[in-house]
Amino acid sequence: MAEKKLVEAITSMSEDFAQWYTDVVKKAELIDYSNVKGCMVIKPAGYAIWENIQKLLDGRFKAAGVENVYMPMFIPESLLQKEKDHVEGFAPEVAWVTHGGLNPLPERMCVRPTSETLFCDFYKGDIHSYRDLPKVYNQWCSVVRWEKETRPFLRSREFLWQEGHTAHATAEEAEERTEQMLNIYADFCEEVLAIPVIKGRKTEKEKFAGAHATYTIEAMMHDGKALQSGTSHNFGDGFAKAFGIQFTDKDNQLKYVHQTSWGVSTRIIGAIIMVHGDDSGLVLPPEIAPTQVMIIPIQQKKEGVLKKAYELSEKLGNFRVKVDDSDKSPGWKFSEQEMRGIPLRVEIGPKDIEAGKCIICRRDTREKFEVAFNELEKTVEELLAKMQKEMLERAKKHLEEHTYTALSREEFENIFAEKTGFVKAMWCGESACEEAIKENMAVTSRCMPFKQECLSDTCVYCGRPAKKMVYWGKAY
Amino acid sequence: MAEKKLVEAITSMSEDFAQWYTDVVKKAELIDYSNVKGCMVIKPAGYAIWENIQKLLDGRFKAAGVENVYMPMFIPESLLQKEKDHVEGFAPEVAWVTHGGLNPLPERMCVRPTSETLFCDFYKGDIHSYRDLPKVYNQWCSVVRWEKETRPFLRSREFLWQEGHTAHATAEEAEERTEQMLNIYADFCEEVLAIPVIKGRKTEKEKFAGAHATYTIEAMMHDGKALQSGTSHNFGDGFAKAFGIQFTDKDNQLKYVHQTSWGVSTRIIGAIIMVHGDDSGLVLPPEIAPTQVMIIPIQQKKEGVLKKAYELSEKLGNFRVKVDDSDKSPGWKFSEQEMRGIPLRVEIGPKDIEAGKCIICRRDTREKFEVAFNELEKTVEELLAKMQKEMLERAKKHLEEHTYTALSREEFENIFAEKTGFVKAMWCGESACEEAIKENMAVTSRCMPFKQECLSDTCVYCGRPAKKMVYWGKAY
Repeated sequence: MAEKKLVEAITSMSEDFAQWYTDVVKKAELIDYSNVKGCMVIKPAGYAIWENIQKLLDGRFKAAGVENVYMPMFIPESLLQKEKDHVEGFAPEVAWVTHGGLNPLPERMCVRPTSETLFCDFYKGDIHSYRDLPKVYNQWCSVVRWEKETRPFLRSREFLWQEGHTAHATAEEAEERTEQMLNIYADFCEEVLAIPVIKGRKTEKEKFAGAHATYTIEAMMHDGKALQSGTSHNFGDGFAKAFGIQFTDKDNQLKYVHQTSWGVSTRIIGAIIMVHGDDSGLVLPPEIAPTQVMIIPIQQKKEGVLKKAYELSEKLGNFRVKVDDSDKSPGWKFSEQEMRGIPLRVEIGPKDIEAGKCIICRRDTREKFEVAFNELEKTVEELLAKMQKEMLERAKKHLEEHTYTALSREEFENIFAEKTGFVKAMWCGESACEEAIKENMAVTSRCMPFKQECLSDTCVYCGRPAKKMVYWGKAY
Repeated sequence: MAEKKLVEAITSMSEDFAQWYTDVVKKAELIDYSNVKGCMVIKPAGYAIWENIQKLLDGRFKAAGVENVYMPMFIPESLLQKEKDHVEGFAPEVAWVTHGGLNPLPERMCVRPTSETLFCDFYKGDIHSYRDLPKVYNQWCSVVRWEKETRPFLRSREFLWQEGHTAHATAEEAEERTEQMLNIYADFCEEVLAIPVIKGRKTEKEKFAGAHATYTIEAMMHDGKALQSGTSHNFGDGFAKAFGIQFTDKDNQLKYVHQTSWGVSTRIIGAIIMVHGDDSGLVLPPEIAPTQVMIIPIQQKKEGVLKKAYELSEKLGNFRVKVDDSDKSPGWKFSEQEMRGIPLRVEIGPKDIEAGKCIICRRDTREKFEVAFNELEKTVEELLAKMQKEMLERAKKHLEEHTYTALSREEFENIFAEKTGFVKAMWCGESACEEAIKENMAVTSRCMPFKQECLSDTCVYCGRPAKKMVYWGKAY
C-alpha cells in the first residue's frame, strides 16, 4: 500500500504548478483533506514543521519582550461590532455559534477570525496607568474564516497562527513595535526558512480591516506569484477609542493607548514548499527540517550494517537524525527521503563499512560526497550550513530574476501578459486606479516597499503624478 | 494601582478555601475572567506555567513515540452521532455552529468537546494495512464544553489540553498504551509537579463516554478534595466498529483496530495551586516554575547594587532567573515574589556586597540562608533540588494523613461527616449502590486503585459481597 503511493511520480512543476503543489503536500504527507468541509488535517510531517516554526519564532518573540497568553476563542456579536471597519471586514466570513448545549444563546458569538476585539476588551479592564504599559502579548491558536475556496496551507476555513497584540503609551512606540515585529518576521524568513522577502506597506485598499497602516513581507514563489507571508499592523488609537482603552499618563492626563497586531500563520509552510520544492518533492531548509539527516542502510540484513547505521546516528547526535530501518528497498527509501525534503541522506552499506566511509547526498543539489567516518560529523555540519546558505542565495536570485520594472502602461501590461513575477512601477496613490489594474490585469499591489525608488514621475497606469513605487503581482 | 492590589491580603485557606483559591488565581495574575461568559483569559504568569507543562510533557510523549498532529476544531453533527454512548455523553454540552458567514450551514457542526470522532474519521481513510499501525498521534488544542458553573482552570467552557488518540493492531497493544500513558502522567505529576497521585480504574458510572475502560490519576488537594488530573481510555474496538476502521493483518484477515485516548488539561494548574499553595499565595515546584529565582536588590539606588544584582543573575544563567529592578519597595517585591510562587528569592544590598554574600530565602519553608557569592550557583542548585523533593514529600504525607479506611457503613458515613479526604472501602460493584452513595453522602468513587487491598468481604454501603476496593471522595 505504502509502496504504491509513491511509485506514481508527482506532476512536474513546469507541467502544472498547482497540481505539483497538491501532489507534494499529499505525498510528503504534510496534510490530508478532512470530511469537515474546508478544514485540513495537519499530519505529523507537516505539524513537525509548524512546531519548529513555533519554537524558533517564539524564541525570537521572547527575546523581544513578548509574553504569551490565551484569550477565549469566541467573540460575542456586540464585541465584534465595536470597531466599524473591523466588523465590515470580518463579519461576512465568520462561523456563528448560536446554541450552547440544548439552548439557544442569548447573543450569538463567532469563532474568532482574529482577536483584536478580545484583546481590546481585556486591555480596557487591565490597563489603568502608564505603569501598566506597554503590553506586548501574543497567542498561538487557531482561527476560523469561512472561505469559499480552500487550498492546503494557503487558504482553509480553520488555520493555525500566532497573533500578537500590543498596547503602548505613545504613537511612536506603537510604530516602532509594528516595524520591529515585521523585521523579526523578515529575518526569520531569511535566516531560518531561506526565503527572501520584500518589506513594505500595504495600500489603503489592501490594509487590514481597522488598521491605520499594515506592513507586510511578500515572498515570491517558484511560479513567480506572491505570497503574503506575515503582516504587522499599526492601529493608532482607533481601536482604543472604539473600546475606550485609556490610561493615566505620567502627566496625570487620561490618554488613549496606541495598538499594534501582527501575525504569521501555517500559510508560511506553503511558502517553504513553493520556494524550495522541486520535481522530486519537498526541499526543507536545514534550520527548519524536523529531520536533517536520514541514514539509509544498504543491504541492511548483512551483518554489521544496521549496527553501523545506528553508530553513525549516535555520532550525529548534535543533529536531528534518523535511521530508516524499515523493510523497504533502499531505492524506495531514497525517494521517500527526497519527497519529504530531508536535507541530507547518508548511505551506508557493507562495502562502505569495509572502506571506513559512507556517502552523503545533498537533497537540493543532488551532489554526492564520499566521507570517512571520522569526518562525518564535521562534514554534516558544513553541508547543512552550506545548504542553508545556498538555498537562500538561489531564492534571492530567483526573486531578482523575476522582478521587472515597468515605466509605461504598455510595458506594464506586456510584462504581465508574458511573465509571472513582481513588477516595480510608479503609482498615483488612488484606490480607483488600483481597482482598475486589478480588474483589467488581475494583478494586485503587493506593497509599497520601504526601499522606495523613483522610477518616473507618473503613474504607470493612469499617467497622473506618481506618489509611490509599488510592487505588483499575482498572488496566492 | 499595582501597589493597591496586593496590599489587601488574600483570604486564608482555613477561613475559606474556595475564596483563597480564587484570590490566588487573581492576585498571582494567572487568569482573568473575560466578558465571554464561562471563558477565561490565561495571563502571562498562568500561560508560562502551561508552556512549561507542554514542553516537559511533550518531551516525555515524544520519547514514547508520540507524534503531534492537528485536526479540525469542528465536528459535523452526523459524525458526532456515530458512536452511541459518545454522543449521549457529549451532545448536551457542546457549542453549535449553525451559520458560516451569511449563510446557514447545510449541517450544523459542534466545536470539538474532544476529538475521538475526528480521529476515527481520519484513521478510517488512513489505515489500511498492519504496516500503517500503530498510529500514536496527539494534539495540543482547545476544546469547548458548555458548562453551567465555571471556575478558573478547574471548569470553563473552553479549556486547553492535549488529547492523544491511538490505533493498534491488537487489544493487548492498546491496553499497554493505555497504561503507558497513564504512567507517563503519573510520573510527570510526581517528578515535575511534586504531586503524588492514586492510579486506578474508573467505575462503569464514571468512565468516559464510549470507552471500554478509563484509567485515572487522582490527586488530593489541600482541602482533602480530589482532583481528577489525567485520564487514559481504552476503547477496545467499539469506535472502530462504529466508524469502520479496519486493516488487513499479516494473516491477510480484515480486522478492526483497537484504540485509546488520553488527556491532560489546564485543570492541572488548579492542582498545582491547591496542592502547594499557602496563605501567602502560590508555591511553584522548581521544575515547573517559569521563574525559579528572583533577585531583589535592597537600596537599589545605591551605587553598585543593581550592577551586582545583574552580575549574580548572570552567574545563575543555568537557572530561570530574573532581577526585579522595578521602583517598588523591597518589601513589596518580596510579597509579589511570594504571591507568584517563585521558589527562591535572592536579597542583595550594600551591606551584603561589602561582606561578599547574599541572602537566599526558600518560598515553601521561608528558611533563610547566608551564601557567599562564590557558593551561590551551587547553593541555588541544591536548594531547588531539595525544595522539589520536599514539596513532593509533604504532599505525600498530606495524602497519606487524609486517607482513611472504612469497614462499615457507619464508619464510612462518620468519616465523611467529620473529615474531607479519601476513604478506602470495599464495594459491591453495582452502579445502583454507587448512585446511592453519591446521592446520600455527596461523595463519588474516585477510582478502583491498581493496588487493590482486601479490607473486608462485604460492600461498605450495601453489605453485599465485595468485588473491589474503591477510593471515595468529594471531588472538584
